[in-house]
Amino acid sequence: MSLINKESSDKEFARTLFDHIRGMSADTAGVTRQGYGEMETRTLEYLEGFGRELDLEIEHDAAGNVWMTLPGRDRTLPAFVAGSHADSVPQGGNFDGLAGIVAALVAARRARLSGWQPERDYRVLMLRCEESSFFGKAYVGSLGMMGRLKESDLALKHRTTGATLAECIASCGVDPKRLTTGEPVIDPKKIAAFLELHIEQGPMLTSQKEARTGIVTGIRGNIRHKEVKVHGETAHSGALNKEYRHDAVMAAARLITRMDDRWDAHLAAGDDLVFTIGVIRTSATAAISVIPGLVSFTVDMRSLSADTCRAFHEELLAEAKALEAERGVRFEFDAPLLTAPAHVNEELAQKLEASAKRAGIPVMRLASGAGHDSATLSNCGIPVAMIFVANQNGSHNPHEAMELDDFMTGADLLWHTLQDFDQAA
Amino acid sequence: MSLINKESSDKEFARTLFDHIRGMSADTAGVTRQGYGEMETRTLEYLEGFGRELDLEIEHDAAGNVWMTLPGRDRTLPAFVAGSHADSVPQGGNFDGLAGIVAALVAARRARLSGWQPERDYRVLMLRCEESSFFGKAYVGSLGMMGRLKESDLALKHRTTGATLAECIASCGVDPKRLTTGEPVIDPKKIAAFLELHIEQGPMLTSQKEARTGIVTGIRGNIRHKEVKVHGETAHSGALNKEYRHDAVMAAARLITRMDDRWDAHLAAGDDLVFTIGVIRTSATAAISVIPGLVSFTVDMRSLSADTCRAFHEELLAEAKALEAERGVRFEFDAPLLTAPAHVNEELAQKLEASAKRAGIPVMRLASGAGHDSATLSNCGIPVAMIFVANQNGSHNPHEAMELDDFMTGADLLWHTLQDFDQAA
Repeated sequence: MSLINKESSDKEFARTLFDHIRGMSADTAGVTRQGYGEMETRTLEYLEGFGRELDLEIEHDAAGNVWMTLPGRDRTLPAFVAGSHADSVPQGGNFDGLAGIVAALVAARRARLSGWQPERDYRVLMLRCEESSFFGKAYVGSLGMMGRLKESDLALKHRTTGATLAECIASCGVDPKRLTTGEPVIDPKKIAAFLELHIEQGPMLTSQKEARTGIVTGIRGNIRHKEVKVHGETAHSGALNKEYRHDAVMAAARLITRMDDRWDAHLAAGDDLVFTIGVIRTSATAAISVIPGLVSFTVDMRSLSADTCRAFHEELLAEAKALEAERGVRFEFDAPLLTAPAHVNEELAQKLEASAKRAGIPVMRLASGAGHDSATLSNCGIPVAMIFVANQNGSHNPHEAMELDDFMTGADLLWHTLQDFDQAA
Repeated sequence: MSLINKESSDKEFARTLFDHIRGMSADTAGVTRQGYGEMETRTLEYLEGFGRELDLEIEHDAAGNVWMTLPGRDRTLPAFVAGSHADSVPQGGNFDGLAGIVAALVAARRARLSGWQPERDYRVLMLRCEESSFFGKAYVGSLGMMGRLKESDLALKHRTTGATLAECIASCGVDPKRLTTGEPVIDPKKIAAFLELHIEQGPMLTSQKEARTGIVTGIRGNIRHKEVKVHGETAHSGALNKEYRHDAVMAAARLITRMDDRWDAHLAAGDDLVFTIGVIRTSATAAISVIPGLVSFTVDMRSLSADTCRAFHEELLAEAKALEAERGVRFEFDAPLLTAPAHVNEELAQKLEASAKRAGIPVMRLASGAGHDSATLSNCGIPVAMIFVANQNGSHNPHEAMELDDFMTGADLLWHTLQDFDQAA
């Protein structure tokens, strides 16, 4: 039975797509749809079936991403594009990525069933391989589409099979070499806007009452250290008085606490900033009765502002230096890993906000802490904006919990924004 | 060639004993002399040989400890006793314990060679099984001597062979049951003073210039937690703003830092206190990009004053409670392990100090962080005092490094104190 008819609701349509794809890609715990893998391809093929039913024009770009176009009245205008990625992490959740594709299809279905034709082409974009979990590289499908993969990326090996990324890309009928030329395989100028709906990967929207739908203010960049070591001196915990100690854990705790205070100061000054010590551990030989001579920890700081990240990182290094002098310990930082923040297009975000207001959808503006294909497109000069849908239990795990009603509200906002796009101020 | 003659020096005598015993008990890395084991027995027999050469009266008490007596002029007076333990940890250092026995023997040798006879009996005490490393129980030889072992102690198993402590004690010709009666196997009233020379197990004496010899102010007691857990909530490190976080590591770091400040306050108030977080670790699933929902750590606080320990422990619990309210985390403390501090006899310590002054030996008063047989004897009402000898690299490892000159200075102080004991104020 076709779902493209007025007897079945948008919600039924969406639920069926989510359920079928969950069933197709189920693993022992959640779902697994490896980028440039068989299950991602089958998922794309299943979704293309609805594109054909909706009489959309279907194209595969040279990176293997799928474009499904509902022609506008003026086909010379750059298109309004909506979508997200079809892949998932192993034992992941079903909605991370897929929600953005289904929302874009819901809008196409509404247009078709209501007979509404947009001014410009409306294109559903289904991207491949956004997740980094199989090859250690994120945004492969969108980077490849922009010609921005590196030779070294293609040599990355699948974490279990050992196959190279190049081999997996080639197995999907795509020439991997084409994706490293620096030249986009599509024409970015033909995109007026890219709108990506995504589940929120934190609980900001479920932690308050005002809104279940978010409009993203930007995608946080980050500075990370995979390992900071604090070198002190081991000694008997009972036998050494404080003035002779070089305690690695005390120094680390003091550094973390000072940075926690400085974080408060940044927030009080209105800066966007989050700061996490995700892993901390003393050495394997540490013991209850030994003053620790070594502790190592990770650092992850993120902000919408590269300047804020840089400033906070400098404060971290300065506090560490101060503690070296105060406590006779030594901090050893590995090379920082930098990811630039990505901007959303403020004009487009305001259009989203205006459409939400007109449609009576309560929204909240919030930063995206996680990265998205939207960042790749934004960094290539394409105007992007993102809609977040409330979601519990984070993402990248089988327990992600998006309510279908919340999804429909987000899909509504996408639909209204598409309709308003050429009308609104 | 005998070493008991005026041609060889005290220093040669001491070096020879240390070297021979090191050779006898050498293992792949350091020395191993298991308490109530064959090598401990052989070491005692080797040392008894010198007792015989010095014409000391040799007795084995019912706990297997060896007493070698140089008779005093008035044999009805309680004795002046000096000594320490003969055993070592596996792959341990040679001087931990042995130094106190050799120093006591040096004094006996001097008395014999100089023809000096003390007022009261001078007795060299060579104790068994002070270290806890083989059976998990410390002070077995001295506790047994005081009849204070428990049935459950006797059932403890050797960490590699699985033999019980009772079996090992019996293999040395000792009836283990006798050691659990609550009745001492010796008469504590016949001990006027017990003086134990020991290497320092921290670097206090090597960290300053004033003195290489220490007079112990007391043996610190402690309160420990083998595991404190902080329960927070995991979340995406980029996606969750500060106000929604329940970060276990931030809370733990804050607690440790506040206790570090409170430790300073205790020291400023003149309290004796040391505080160590020896082990800290996030859970196995912790990751750089995940706000940690769990971290666990050990707590070790020690003081000469049980009141200070108790007060600091209460402050720890109160700060944890405050942080639970401030940060929405939960602290889970396991049952605290308590060890009472042991007092040295202040009169005896002052005699030591006076003798040092008369002999021109610079001394420093310092607390013992580690436990000693002296604590057992003190807790049974025997006046005890301890001499510490400067030592590098701590103890319980093959790298302990006591200079023989420093040892001789400590042995000198023991000798002078013995001579002064019945004369001094």
